[in-house]
Amino acid sequence: MARSMSDLPESEAYRLATSPSHLLHRAEQLAADRFTQLVGDSVTLRQFAVLAAIAESPGLSQSDLVRATGVDRSTMADMMNRMETRGWITRVASTLDARARSVRLASSGVTLLAAATHHARAADAAILDALPKTKRRAFLNTLTKLAKISDEAAAKADREERKKAKRTRKERAKKKDDKASTARKPRR
Amino acid sequence: MARSMSDLPESEAYRLATSPSHLLHRAEQLAADRFTQLVGDSVTLRQFAVLAAIAESPGLSQSDLVRATGVDRSTMADMMNRMETRGWITRVASTLDARARSVRLASSGVTLLAAATHHARAADAAILDALPKTKRRAFLNTLTKLAKISDEAAAKADREERKKAKRTRKERAKKKDDKASTARKPRR
Repeated sequence: MARSMSDLPESEAYRLATSPSHLLHRAEQLAADRFTQLVGDSVTLRQFAVLAAIAESPGLSQSDLVRATGVDRSTMADMMNRMETRGWITRVASTLDARARSVRLASSGVTLLAAATHHARAADAAILDALPKTKRRAFLNTLTKLAKISDEAAAKADREERKKAKRTRKERAKKKDDKASTARKPRR
Repeated sequence: MARSMSDLPESEAYRLATSPSHLLHRAEQLAADRFTQLVGDSVTLRQFAVLAAIAESPGLSQSDLVRATGVDRSTMADMMNRMETRGWITRVASTLDARARSVRLASSGVTLLAAATHHARAADAAILDALPKTKRRAFLNTLTKLAKISDEAAAKADREERKKAKRTRKERAKKKDDKASTARKPRR
């Protein structure tokens, strides 16, 4: 049965027009659309950002790129597969972590990045040009601050995730030990 | 061959850390990550926003939803398929446009939206809480302005796209007419 928000009490309704996260997304879309107008459908601004992140730090793992770009894990996995197929990137086993693969730009990726860079700058300019000159600096400062807090929150969540995994492993090992020692005890 | 940005002249390098579009995305990620922490992996903040858009205006087409949410066309198509499979939405043939299908929330979608709304509010709050109280209003105003300009740019691009398609159809029809009239003309 199709139902609508009007079935919910008024106080519960979530208004997209006043949601900061939604407004951030819509604002970003201004740049993404401008980029697509300029370069066509061959590469999106998000793909461009991932290529730029790889170019900035060659050899990052996919997890590093998730953190660096804010693209979520499953989308990143899809992107990496497609980019490899298109010859934009290469992935080789990491020397630091056997489970990870380190990502680098392939020749086509370097060419694409170089060709699209001024279009990405124009897309970024579409955002700033929409604002009065006097407001641009403050807006960028606020965004930079939020991006930094976002990075820190993601890093903290990562650390907690790893701690939890470690604790679980320890508890499992302890249970195993307890079981083994109980088994060794003579019955009364 | 793997190459890096260092192969490019310095002036060409694109710095993610100073890119407005990238910073917008990272800032949005702060809310998206907070939302995932609160509700788990069952629904993303982007999916929530699409459900909220459907709830606000039941019966919109997929194209309307692309405009309303800033989710790109191919991602939206994937989302709609998954949401329908999960019983969150229903799609029926539109009464206005034979090619379009109008989207409504199904019962599970309404339940999910109601259950996740306060988490989405908390995720939005994560953005504002990160800013000094005195800066929040100005930041929201700037974002609202950018979102509006983004909407207008998207609507303008849509109109131009339609105009172009109409012109192409006209030119094709004219060529066909010319050909027909040339064929009718007696040869000298």
